[in-house]
Formats: sequence, structure tokens, C-alpha cells
Amino acid sequence: MPEPLITWHGEVPSEWTDYNGHLRDAFYLLIFSYATDGFMEHIGLGEAQRETSGHSLFTLECHLNFLHEVHQGAEVAVHTQLLACDHKRVQLYHSLHIKGETLTLAASEQMLLHVALDGPKAVPFQDSMAAHLADLARQHSKGPKPEWTGRMIGMPKAIK
Amino acid sequence: MPEPLITWHGEVPSEWTDYNGHLRDAFYLLIFSYATDGFMEHIGLGEAQRETSGHSLFTLECHLNFLHEVHQGAEVAVHTQLLACDHKRVQLYHSLHIKGETLTLAASEQMLLHVALDGPKAVPFQDSMAAHLADLARQHSKGPKPEWTGRMIGMPKAIK
Repeated sequence: MPEPLITWHGEVPSEWTDYNGHLRDAFYLLIFSYATDGFMEHIGLGEAQRETSGHSLFTLECHLNFLHEVHQGAEVAVHTQLLACDHKRVQLYHSLHIKGETLTLAASEQMLLHVALDGPKAVPFQDSMAAHLADLARQHSKGPKPEWTGRMIGMPKAIK
Repeated sequence: MPEPLITWHGEVPSEWTDYNGHLRDAFYLLIFSYATDGFMEHIGLGEAQRETSGHSLFTLECHLNFLHEVHQGAEVAVHTQLLACDHKRVQLYHSLHIKGETLTLAASEQMLLHVALDGPKAVPFQDSMAAHLADLARQHSKGPKPEWTGRMIGMPKAIK
């Protein structure tokens, strides 16, 4: 089984916590957003390349599951798997952990679109990047099966 | 058709924007998180009541669709509909708009759980709150049908 790809790690600062001293929902997503930046660096779509190519990834859609509270000062890390890709999109799975531990504290499935910033308009990946992504998706499919994917929000027996 | 319930409005500050001068994905959710606070105030679960009752809502799960870029300085507002509720959960739909306009810039469907903070553990709503919520869900079902609900992330014809 391959080592997880760690796309962000750091300490939870007080500005990200609520009245209760716990990470606020939006700041779980900020951590995952930084992890997406880390993934982009990893595949060669980081800040320097963005400035050269004028290309970037925009988040189209995301799903989040909040599984455990995270306290101020916690040392956390994000593991990222590339679930799938096509000529202009990547589907990512991020999971949040206490650094060095396996328990999933939160998870996010995301769909991102490759864009030329001067539109902005959707553009295909260059051939070399597309091949690299397809290879990465194959490698990541050998990792642990992600738990929190393909989910739809719904209430059983809703009172309306 | 009832007026939309406006749960948050304000101006997008520079700290919420990315390299591009646009609202970063996590800060769309921060706006929706503040809107959830606004909804909680509206139903009598605001800060003062939380301190008295020791009860609050925790976000379990959320889905986000990013439909349009939002610029620094934009004056935005969140409309909120209570989609459904049961004895301990509420299902909300938030939509983000330029203040006074109808175009949806982003949307979020969310499931929240009523908890006693001293556990934290799930607890049922008090009868009066449950009745109020059920009534609100009935009123809100007369509003516009929310566009971005019941969604699942998936890539057609994924290359693996």
C-alpha cells in the first residue's frame, strides 16, 4: 500500500475556532483548500507555474463530512487521493488527521476544473499533465478505499 | 410566495480573497456558516440561548456548489430555507446572492444536529422548538424550489 500523499500540515490557530475552542466548519474547508494548493504544487500547477501558464484549478463542487471535533493547537495533516480525472477535471478526496494518526476527523470529496485565468474558461490539461494525472490516479487507487465519497444529503422520515 | 429569509449580509473583505481577487472556496462556507448562526438566532438558538440552555447545532455534513466568482468588495446576502427537520436534526439550504439580486452565486445544502454541549451528545429539540421548526419548514416549502440539493459528486467517463 503506498504512503499517503500529505498535502498540508500545521497547527490549528485560535482564529479558526469557535466559542467552544473547536475548529469552525469553514476552517476545515480552509485546511482542505490549502491541501488542494499542496496537491497543485505536487502535480506542477503551483503558484510559479500558474504565473507562467496562466492556468489553475477552480473548485466546482465539494462535499464535507465533519466527524470529530478538532481543538485549537491540534497538529493536523491532510492526506489526499486523486480519485479520478478527465481531460479538464480532477476529483479529489481529502481526509484530515491528527499528524501521524489514521483516524479520519473530517473528509471532503471535491471536483475541480482546469481553467485558463484570462477567460476564465475551461481548458484541457496539456498532454504531459494529463498522462501524469492518469498515472497518479492509478497509483492512488491502490491506497485505502476512501470512506466518505459519493454521498448525498438527506433526512430519513423528514417532517415537512 | 414568501420573502426569502436573509440570514447574513455584508461586504467581502480582502482577507477572504485569493491571488485572483476572488472569494476563496472556504470563505463561501464561512459566509454560509455565519448564515447558519443567523438562522439559529432566528429560531431562538442564538448565543444568549446557547449560554442559558447549553444547546447548540453542530454541522454534520455539507455540500457546496460554486457557481460564480465573487469579487472583493461585493455586497452579498444569504437566503436560507429550512428544507426539513426531525426531532434532533435540521436540513438547511443556503444560497449566496449579490444583495437585492436573485442570481445564485453559490449554494450549500447542510445537515445539522442538535447537541447538548456538555457531552457533546445529540439531544431532541424541546417540544416548542420542534413545533416552531416544523411550522417553518412548511412555510419555507412554499418558497422557490432550491436548485442545488440532493447532489452527489461524480465524474462521467472517468479515466482511472
